[in-house]
Amino acid sequence: MSNFKLGFVIFPDLTQLDLTGPLQVLARLPDSTTFIVGKSDSPVPSDCGLSLVPTHTFANCPALDLICIPGGVKGVIGAIGDHETIDFVRRQAKAAKYVTSACTGAFVLGVAGLLKGRRATTHWAYTELLPLVGATYEKARIVQDGNLFTAGGVTAGVDFGLSIAAEIAGDTVARTIQLGIEYDPAPPFDSGHPDRAPATIKSALSDRYQKARSALRDSITQAVMA
Amino acid sequence: MSNFKLGFVIFPDLTQLDLTGPLQVLARLPDSTTFIVGKSDSPVPSDCGLSLVPTHTFANCPALDLICIPGGVKGVIGAIGDHETIDFVRRQAKAAKYVTSACTGAFVLGVAGLLKGRRATTHWAYTELLPLVGATYEKARIVQDGNLFTAGGVTAGVDFGLSIAAEIAGDTVARTIQLGIEYDPAPPFDSGHPDRAPATIKSALSDRYQKARSALRDSITQAVMA
Repeated sequence: MSNFKLGFVIFPDLTQLDLTGPLQVLARLPDSTTFIVGKSDSPVPSDCGLSLVPTHTFANCPALDLICIPGGVKGVIGAIGDHETIDFVRRQAKAAKYVTSACTGAFVLGVAGLLKGRRATTHWAYTELLPLVGATYEKARIVQDGNLFTAGGVTAGVDFGLSIAAEIAGDTVARTIQLGIEYDPAPPFDSGHPDRAPATIKSALSDRYQKARSALRDSITQAVMA
Repeated sequence: MSNFKLGFVIFPDLTQLDLTGPLQVLARLPDSTTFIVGKSDSPVPSDCGLSLVPTHTFANCPALDLICIPGGVKGVIGAIGDHETIDFVRRQAKAAKYVTSACTGAFVLGVAGLLKGRRATTHWAYTELLPLVGATYEKARIVQDGNLFTAGGVTAGVDFGLSIAAEIAGDTVARTIQLGIEYDPAPPFDSGHPDRAPATIKSALSDRYQKARSALRDSITQAVMA
Protein backbone atom coordinates (compact mmCIF):
# COMPACT_ATOMS: atom_id res chain seq x y z
CA MET A 1 0.00 0.00 0.00
CA SER A 2 1.52 3.29 -0.98
CA ASN A 3 -0.32 6.57 -1.31
CA PHE A 4 -3.69 4.89 -1.17
CA LYS A 5 -6.26 7.25 -2.68
CA LEU A 6 -9.53 7.48 -0.77
CA GLY A 7 -12.32 9.37 -2.48
CA PHE A 8 -15.65 10.56 -1.11
CA VAL A 9 -18.24 11.84 -3.55
CA ILE A 10 -20.32 14.79 -2.35
CA PHE A 11 -23.55 16.20 -3.77
CA PRO A 12 -26.13 18.75 -2.56
CA ASP A 13 -28.26 17.71 0.45
CA LEU A 14 -26.12 14.75 1.42
CA THR A 15 -26.44 13.59 5.02
CA GLN A 16 -23.12 14.99 6.15
CA LEU A 17 -22.36 12.40 8.87
CA ASP A 18 -22.53 9.64 6.22
CA LEU A 19 -19.38 11.25 4.86
CA THR A 20 -17.75 12.84 7.89
CA GLY A 21 -17.92 9.67 10.03
CA PRO A 22 -15.95 7.36 7.72
CA LEU A 23 -13.77 10.31 6.65
CA GLN A 24 -12.59 10.88 10.23
CA VAL A 25 -11.55 7.22 10.42
CA LEU A 26 -10.05 6.79 6.97
CA ALA A 27 -8.15 10.09 6.88
CA ARG A 28 -5.94 8.55 9.60
CA LEU A 29 -4.78 5.65 7.44
CA PRO A 30 -1.02 5.84 6.91
CA ASP A 31 0.31 6.48 3.38
CA SER A 32 -3.02 7.63 2.10
CA THR A 33 -4.57 10.74 0.59
CA THR A 34 -8.16 11.80 0.95
CA PHE A 35 -10.17 13.32 -1.90
CA ILE A 36 -13.50 15.08 -1.40
CA VAL A 37 -14.95 15.09 -4.87
CA GLY A 38 -17.73 17.34 -6.13
CA LYS A 39 -19.17 18.18 -9.51
CA SER A 40 -17.50 21.59 -9.31
CA ASP A 41 -15.27 23.51 -6.91
CA SER A 42 -18.25 25.19 -5.25
CA PRO A 43 -19.16 24.40 -1.63
CA VAL A 44 -21.81 21.70 -1.42
CA PRO A 45 -24.71 22.26 1.01
CA SER A 46 -25.41 19.32 3.32
CA ASP A 47 -28.65 18.45 5.12
CA CYS A 48 -27.54 20.28 8.28
CA GLY A 49 -26.92 23.87 7.16
CA LEU A 50 -23.23 23.05 6.92
CA SER A 51 -21.61 23.35 3.48
CA LEU A 52 -18.58 21.26 2.54
CA VAL A 53 -15.81 22.32 0.18
CA PRO A 54 -14.63 19.77 -2.40
CA THR A 55 -10.90 19.26 -2.75
CA HIS A 56 -11.34 17.92 -6.28
CA THR A 57 -13.87 17.80 -9.08
CA PHE A 58 -15.04 14.90 -11.22
CA ALA A 59 -12.78 16.34 -13.93
CA ASN A 60 -9.53 16.51 -11.96
CA CYS A 61 -9.88 13.63 -9.50
CA PRO A 62 -7.23 10.95 -10.06
CA ALA A 63 -8.04 7.22 -10.19
CA LEU A 64 -9.19 6.24 -6.69
CA ASP A 65 -8.29 3.10 -4.76
CA LEU A 66 -11.44 3.44 -2.68
CA ILE A 67 -14.62 5.26 -3.56
CA CYS A 68 -17.24 5.96 -0.91
CA ILE A 69 -20.72 7.33 -1.56
CA PRO A 70 -22.63 8.94 1.30
CA GLY A 71 -26.42 9.07 1.42
CA GLY A 72 -29.30 11.30 2.38
CA VAL A 73 -32.51 10.67 0.44
CA LYS A 74 -32.98 14.16 -0.97
CA GLY A 75 -29.33 14.23 -2.03
CA VAL A 76 -29.39 10.71 -3.46
CA ILE A 77 -32.48 11.51 -5.54
CA GLY A 78 -30.52 14.39 -7.05
CA ALA A 79 -27.38 12.32 -7.56
CA ILE A 80 -29.09 9.39 -9.27
CA GLY A 81 -30.79 11.78 -11.67
CA ASP A 82 -27.48 13.36 -12.64
CA HIS A 83 -25.60 11.66 -15.49
CA GLU A 84 -22.25 13.26 -14.63
CA THR A 85 -22.37 11.96 -11.06
CA ILE A 86 -23.41 8.45 -12.10
CA ASP A 87 -20.80 8.36 -14.89
CA PHE A 88 -18.06 9.45 -12.48
CA VAL A 89 -19.02 6.77 -9.95
CA ARG A 90 -19.23 4.05 -12.62
CA ARG A 91 -15.90 5.02 -14.17
CA GLN A 92 -14.02 5.23 -10.85
CA ALA A 93 -15.58 2.02 -9.52
CA LYS A 94 -14.25 0.01 -12.47
CA ALA A 95 -10.65 0.44 -11.37
CA ALA A 96 -11.07 0.96 -7.61
CA LYS A 97 -9.93 -1.71 -5.17
CA TYR A 98 -12.92 -0.96 -2.94
CA VAL A 99 -16.37 0.30 -3.87
CA THR A 100 -18.31 1.46 -0.84
CA SER A 101 -21.34 3.33 0.45
CA ALA A 102 -22.88 4.56 3.67
CA CYS A 103 -26.64 4.79 4.20
CA THR A 104 -28.71 5.44 1.06
CA GLY A 105 -25.51 6.09 -0.90
CA ALA A 106 -25.99 2.43 -1.86
CA PHE A 107 -28.59 3.53 -4.41
CA VAL A 108 -26.08 5.74 -6.20
CA LEU A 109 -23.90 2.66 -6.61
CA GLY A 110 -27.03 0.74 -7.60
CA VAL A 111 -28.11 3.15 -10.33
CA ALA A 112 -24.52 3.07 -11.63
CA GLY A 113 -25.08 -0.68 -12.09
CA LEU A 114 -22.64 -1.70 -9.37
CA LEU A 115 -24.98 -3.72 -7.14
CA LYS A 116 -26.34 -6.17 -9.71
CA GLY A 117 -26.28 -9.65 -8.25
CA ARG A 118 -24.55 -8.43 -5.10
CA ARG A 119 -25.45 -8.61 -1.43
CA ALA A 120 -25.84 -5.15 0.13
CA THR A 121 -27.38 -3.04 2.86
CA THR A 122 -28.55 0.54 3.35
CA HIS A 123 -30.45 2.66 5.89
CA TRP A 124 -33.08 0.41 7.57
CA ALA A 125 -35.98 2.42 6.14
CA TYR A 126 -34.96 1.77 2.52
CA THR A 127 -33.77 -1.84 2.46
CA GLU A 128 -36.86 -2.98 0.54
CA LEU A 129 -35.74 -0.86 -2.42
CA LEU A 130 -32.44 -2.73 -2.91
CA PRO A 131 -33.93 -5.26 -5.38
CA LEU A 132 -34.80 -2.34 -7.70
CA VAL A 133 -31.07 -2.09 -8.46
CA GLY A 134 -30.54 -5.84 -8.62
CA ALA A 135 -29.15 -6.26 -5.11
CA THR A 136 -30.10 -8.76 -2.42
CA TYR A 137 -30.59 -7.20 1.00
CA GLU A 138 -28.51 -8.73 3.74
CA LYS A 139 -29.46 -7.77 7.28
CA ALA A 140 -26.22 -6.51 8.79
CA ARG A 141 -24.72 -3.16 9.77
CA ILE A 142 -21.93 -3.66 7.23
CA VAL A 143 -22.14 -6.03 4.28
CA GLN A 144 -19.07 -7.12 2.35
CA ASP A 145 -19.47 -8.85 -1.01
CA GLY A 146 -16.09 -9.10 -2.67
CA ASN A 147 -14.70 -5.59 -3.01
CA LEU A 148 -18.10 -4.04 -2.31
CA PHE A 149 -18.78 -2.71 1.19
CA THR A 150 -22.17 -1.20 1.99
CA ALA A 151 -23.12 0.18 5.39
CA GLY A 152 -26.42 0.83 7.16
CA GLY A 153 -27.82 4.24 8.07
CA VAL A 154 -25.71 7.30 8.89
CA THR A 155 -23.71 6.29 12.00
CA ALA A 156 -22.97 2.86 10.51
CA GLY A 157 -20.34 4.76 8.53
CA VAL A 158 -18.03 4.86 11.54
CA ASP A 159 -18.21 1.07 12.01
CA PHE A 160 -17.74 0.69 8.26
CA GLY A 161 -14.72 3.01 8.35
CA LEU A 162 -13.01 0.89 10.98
CA SER A 163 -13.83 -2.35 9.16
CA ILE A 164 -12.41 -1.14 5.88
CA ALA A 165 -9.41 0.43 7.64
CA ALA A 166 -8.64 -3.04 9.02
CA GLU A 167 -9.08 -4.57 5.57
CA ILE A 168 -6.70 -2.05 4.01
CA ALA A 169 -4.08 -1.58 6.73
CA GLY A 170 -4.63 -4.36 9.27
CA ASP A 171 -6.29 -4.68 12.66
CA THR A 172 -3.55 -2.85 14.58
CA VAL A 173 -3.94 0.30 12.51
CA ALA A 174 -7.74 0.15 12.78
CA ARG A 175 -7.64 -0.33 16.54
CA THR A 176 -5.20 2.55 16.91
CA ILE A 177 -7.58 4.80 15.00
CA GLN A 178 -10.47 3.58 17.19
CA LEU A 179 -8.58 4.53 20.35
CA GLY A 180 -7.60 7.89 18.87
CA ILE A 181 -11.23 8.79 18.18
CA GLU A 182 -12.32 7.29 21.53
CA TYR A 183 -14.89 5.14 19.76
CA ASP A 184 -16.31 3.48 22.83
CA PRO A 185 -19.97 4.20 22.12
CA ALA A 186 -22.46 4.58 24.95
CA PRO A 187 -25.81 5.64 23.48
CA PRO A 188 -28.09 7.04 26.20
CA PHE A 189 -31.02 5.09 24.70
CA ASP A 190 -31.47 1.80 22.87
CA SER A 191 -33.54 3.04 19.95
CA GLY A 192 -31.00 2.87 17.14
CA HIS A 193 -32.61 0.03 15.20
CA PRO A 194 -36.26 -0.80 14.46
CA ASP A 195 -35.77 -4.23 16.09
CA ARG A 196 -35.29 -2.52 19.42
CA ALA A 197 -36.92 0.93 19.24
CA PRO A 198 -40.27 1.23 21.04
CA ALA A 199 -43.36 1.18 18.79
CA THR A 200 -44.17 4.81 19.60
CA ILE A 201 -40.76 5.90 18.31
CA LYS A 202 -41.17 3.91 15.12
CA SER A 203 -44.64 5.25 14.46
CA ALA A 204 -43.41 8.83 15.00
CA LEU A 205 -41.15 8.32 11.98
CA SER A 206 -43.31 6.11 9.79
CA ASP A 207 -45.12 8.83 7.83
CA ARG A 208 -41.94 10.71 7.02
CA TYR A 209 -40.13 7.57 5.89
CA GLN A 210 -43.07 6.29 3.87
CA LYS A 211 -43.06 9.49 1.83
CA ALA A 212 -39.29 9.51 1.45
CA ARG A 213 -39.26 5.82 0.46
CA SER A 214 -41.91 6.44 -2.14
CA ALA A 215 -39.99 9.39 -3.62
CA LEU A 216 -36.76 7.39 -3.70
CA ARG A 217 -38.53 4.41 -5.28
CA ASP A 218 -39.85 6.62 -8.09
CA SER A 219 -36.44 8.12 -8.75
CA ILE A 220 -34.67 4.77 -8.81
CA THR A 221 -37.29 3.27 -11.12
CA GLN A 222 -36.97 6.20 -13.48
CA ALA A 223 -33.16 6.11 -13.40
CA VAL A 224 -32.77 2.39 -14.01
CA MET A 225 -35.19 2.56 -16.97
CA ALA A 226 -33.38 5.55 -18.53
CA MET B 1 -38.76 25.97 23.37
CA SER B 2 -39.23 28.07 20.27
CA ASN B 3 -36.60 28.66 17.64
CA PHE B 4 -33.87 27.27 19.84
CA LYS B 5 -30.53 28.58 18.57
CA LEU B 6 -27.73 26.00 18.45
CA GLY B 7 -24.28 27.32 17.68
CA PHE B 8 -21.09 25.45 16.84
CA VAL B 9 -17.83 27.37 16.83
CA ILE B 10 -15.35 26.37 14.12
CA PHE B 11 -11.65 27.21 13.83
CA PRO B 12 -8.79 25.99 11.61
CA ASP B 13 -7.63 22.40 12.15
CA LEU B 14 -10.61 21.35 14.24
CA THR B 15 -11.31 17.61 14.38
CA GLN B 16 -14.32 17.71 12.10
CA LEU B 17 -16.23 14.77 13.64
CA ASP B 18 -16.26 16.59 17.01
CA LEU B 19 -18.56 19.03 15.25
CA THR B 20 -20.29 16.97 12.59
CA GLY B 21 -21.35 14.20 15.01
CA PRO B 22 -23.37 16.35 17.43
CA LEU B 23 -24.46 18.58 14.53
CA GLN B 24 -26.14 15.64 12.78
CA VAL B 25 -28.09 14.90 15.95
CA LEU B 26 -28.94 18.43 17.02
CA ALA B 27 -29.88 19.75 13.58
CA ARG B 28 -32.90 17.41 13.82
CA LEU B 29 -34.31 19.09 16.92
CA PRO B 30 -37.73 20.58 16.17
CA ASP B 31 -38.14 24.37 16.30
CA SER B 32 -34.43 25.01 16.23
CA THR B 33 -31.88 26.73 14.02
CA THR B 34 -28.27 25.72 13.63
CA PHE B 35 -25.43 28.21 13.38
CA ILE B 36 -21.92 27.29 12.25
CA VAL B 37 -19.86 30.19 13.49
CA GLY B 38 -16.41 31.17 12.28
CA LYS B 39 -14.16 34.17 12.72
CA SER B 40 -14.91 35.17 9.14
CA ASP B 41 -17.02 33.92 6.22
CA SER B 42 -14.09 31.99 4.75
CA PRO B 43 -14.14 28.19 4.67
CA VAL B 44 -12.34 26.69 7.65
CA PRO B 45 -9.94 23.80 7.03
CA SER B 46 -10.48 20.79 9.29
CA ASP B 47 -7.98 18.08 10.23
CA CYS B 48 -9.20 15.79 7.39
CA GLY B 49 -8.65 17.80 4.23
CA LEU B 50 -12.30 18.80 4.34
CA SER B 51 -13.08 22.50 4.71
CA LEU B 52 -16.30 23.69 6.33
CA VAL B 53 -18.19 26.86 5.45
CA PRO B 54 -19.44 29.01 8.34
CA THR B 55 -23.05 30.16 8.19
CA HIS B 56 -22.28 33.08 10.51
CA THR B 57 -19.36 35.03 11.92
CA PHE B 58 -18.58 36.08 15.48
CA ALA B 59 -19.82 39.53 14.44
CA ASN B 60 -23.26 38.56 13.09
CA CYS B 61 -24.14 35.50 15.18
CA PRO B 62 -27.21 36.10 17.35
CA ALA B 63 -27.37 35.16 21.05
CA LEU B 64 -27.23 31.36 21.22
CA ASP B 65 -29.25 29.07 23.44
CA LEU B 66 -26.60 26.39 23.15
CA ILE B 67 -22.94 26.82 22.32
CA CYS B 68 -20.81 23.82 21.42
CA ILE B 69 -17.03 23.84 20.99
CA PRO B 70 -15.37 21.03 19.06
CA GLY B 71 -11.77 19.99 19.64
CA GLY B 72 -8.66 18.87 17.84
CA VAL B 73 -5.39 19.71 19.60
CA LYS B 74 -3.79 21.72 16.81
CA GLY B 75 -7.02 23.66 16.32
CA VAL B 76 -7.58 24.18 20.04
CA ILE B 77 -4.05 25.52 20.48
CA GLY B 78 -4.88 28.09 17.81
CA ALA B 79 -8.28 28.91 19.29
CA ILE B 80 -7.07 29.42 22.86
CA GLY B 81 -4.37 31.78 21.63
CA ASP B 82 -6.92 33.89 19.76
CA HIS B 83 -8.58 36.67 21.77
CA GLU B 84 -11.50 37.08 19.38
CA THR B 85 -12.42 33.41 19.63
CA ILE B 86 -12.13 33.32 23.41
CA ASP B 87 -14.06 36.59 23.78
CA PHE B 88 -16.87 35.27 21.55
CA VAL B 89 -17.13 32.04 23.54
CA ARG B 90 -17.10 33.86 26.88
CA ARG B 91 -19.71 36.40 25.76
CA GLN B 92 -22.09 33.81 24.27
CA ALA B 93 -21.69 31.43 27.22
CA LYS B 94 -22.87 34.10 29.66
CA ALA B 95 -26.40 34.08 28.26
CA ALA B 96 -26.60 30.55 26.80
CA LYS B 97 -28.85 27.95 28.40
CA TYR B 98 -26.26 25.26 27.64
CA VAL B 99 -22.49 25.53 27.40
CA THR B 100 -20.95 22.45 25.84
CA SER B 101 -17.85 20.90 24.32
CA ALA B 102 -16.72 17.76 22.57
CA CYS B 103 -13.22 16.33 22.92
CA THR B 104 -10.47 18.92 23.60
CA GLY B 105 -12.94 21.73 22.91
CA ALA B 106 -13.24 21.66 26.73
CA PHE B 107 -10.00 23.65 26.91
CA VAL B 108 -11.45 26.47 24.84
CA LEU B 109 -14.22 26.71 27.43
CA GLY B 110 -11.54 26.42 30.11
CA VAL B 111 -9.38 29.25 28.83
CA ALA B 112 -12.53 31.37 28.57
CA GLY B 113 -12.88 30.80 32.33
CA LEU B 114 -15.97 28.64 32.06
CA LEU B 115 -14.72 25.49 33.78
CA LYS B 116 -13.56 27.02 37.06
CA GLY B 117 -14.80 24.86 39.93
CA ARG B 118 -16.73 22.61 37.55
CA ARG B 119 -16.64 18.88 36.86
CA ALA B 120 -15.70 18.12 33.26
CA THR B 121 -14.24 15.63 30.83
CA THR B 122 -12.31 15.70 27.54
CA HIS B 123 -10.48 13.29 25.20
CA TRP B 124 -8.88 10.53 27.35
CA ALA B 125 -5.35 11.61 26.43
CA TYR B 126 -5.77 15.12 27.87
CA THR B 127 -7.80 14.65 31.04
CA GLU B 128 -4.79 15.39 33.27
CA LEU B 129 -4.74 18.95 31.88
CA LEU B 130 -8.23 19.84 33.12
CA PRO B 131 -6.99 21.20 36.49
CA LEU B 132 -4.96 23.82 34.56
CA VAL B 133 -8.27 25.56 33.80
CA GLY B 134 -9.71 24.99 37.27
CA ALA B 135 -11.82 21.94 36.41
CA THR B 136 -12.09 18.61 38.17
CA TYR B 137 -11.89 15.62 35.87
CA GLU B 138 -14.79 13.22 36.14
CA LYS B 139 -14.35 9.87 34.43
CA ALA B 140 -17.38 9.59 32.18
CA ARG B 141 -18.15 9.79 28.47
CA ILE B 142 -20.40 12.78 29.11
CA VAL B 143 -20.25 14.97 32.20
CA GLN B 144 -23.05 17.32 33.17
CA ASP B 145 -22.46 19.99 35.80
CA GLY B 146 -25.40 22.36 35.85
CA ASN B 147 -25.74 23.83 32.36
CA LEU B 148 -22.27 22.64 31.37
CA PHE B 149 -21.98 19.48 29.28
CA THR B 150 -18.54 18.21 28.30
CA ALA B 151 -17.95 15.08 26.25
CA GLY B 152 -15.00 12.73 25.79
CA GLY B 153 -12.98 12.27 22.61
CA VAL B 154 -14.37 12.74 19.08
CA THR B 155 -17.11 10.09 18.76
CA ALA B 156 -18.42 10.91 22.26
CA GLY B 157 -20.02 13.88 20.52
CA VAL B 158 -22.78 11.65 19.13
CA ASP B 159 -23.68 10.31 22.58
CA PHE B 160 -23.48 13.86 23.90
CA GLY B 161 -25.76 15.09 21.11
CA LEU B 162 -28.44 12.57 22.03
CA SER B 163 -28.13 13.33 25.74
CA ILE B 164 -28.53 17.04 25.26
CA ALA B 165 -31.31 16.52 22.70
CA ALA B 166 -33.20 14.62 25.41
CA GLU B 167 -32.50 17.41 27.91
CA ILE B 168 -33.80 20.06 25.50
CA ALA B 169 -36.70 18.28 23.80
CA GLY B 170 -37.37 15.12 25.80
CA ASP B 171 -36.56 11.44 25.48
CA THR B 172 -39.05 10.75 22.68
CA VAL B 173 -37.47 13.29 20.37
CA ALA B 174 -33.96 12.05 21.19
CA ARG B 175 -34.93 8.42 20.57
CA THR B 176 -36.57 9.36 17.28
CA ILE B 177 -33.36 11.05 16.17
CA GLN B 178 -31.38 7.99 17.27
CA LEU B 179 -33.53 5.72 15.11
CA GLY B 180 -33.30 8.12 12.18
CA ILE B 181 -29.50 8.05 12.24
CA GLU B 182 -29.51 4.28 12.92
CA TYR B 183 -27.29 4.79 15.94
CA ASP B 184 -26.97 1.19 16.92
CA PRO B 185 -23.19 1.07 17.15
CA ALA B 186 -21.28 -2.13 16.49
CA PRO B 187 -17.56 -1.37 16.57
CA PRO B 188 -15.58 -4.18 14.93
CA PHE B 189 -13.01 -3.98 17.77
CA ASP B 190 -13.05 -3.12 21.46
CA SER B 191 -10.21 -0.61 21.51
CA GLY B 192 -12.09 2.63 21.97
CA HIS B 193 -10.94 3.39 25.49
CA PRO B 194 -7.54 2.97 27.19
CA ASP B 195 -9.19 0.80 29.87
CA ARG B 196 -9.86 -1.83 27.21
CA ALA B 197 -7.41 -1.28 24.36
CA PRO B 198 -4.52 -3.76 24.24
CA ALA B 199 -1.15 -2.47 25.51
CA THR B 200 0.38 -2.61 22.02
CA ILE B 201 -2.32 -0.29 20.69
CA LYS B 202 -1.81 2.16 23.54
CA SER B 203 1.94 2.19 23.13
CA ALA B 204 1.58 2.83 19.38
CA LEU B 205 -0.08 6.13 20.27
CA SER B 206 1.84 7.13 23.38
CA ASP B 207 4.63 9.12 21.72
CA ARG B 208 2.26 11.13 19.57
CA TYR B 209 -0.05 11.95 22.47
CA GLN B 210 2.81 12.79 24.81
CA LYS B 211 4.02 15.44 22.38
CA ALA B 212 0.52 16.76 21.72
CA ARG B 213 -0.27 16.87 25.45
CA SER B 214 2.92 18.78 26.15
CA ALA B 215 2.14 21.33 23.41
CA LEU B 216 -1.41 21.78 24.67
CA ARG B 217 -0.18 22.12 28.26
CA ASP B 218 2.20 24.91 27.24
CA SER B 219 -0.54 26.76 25.34
CA ILE B 220 -3.05 26.50 28.15
CA THR B 221 -0.50 27.65 30.72
CA GLN B 222 0.42 30.64 28.58
CA ALA B 223 -3.23 31.52 27.89
CA VAL B 224 -4.42 31.35 31.50
CA MET B 225 -1.50 33.52 32.63
CA ALA B 226 -2.14 36.13 29.90
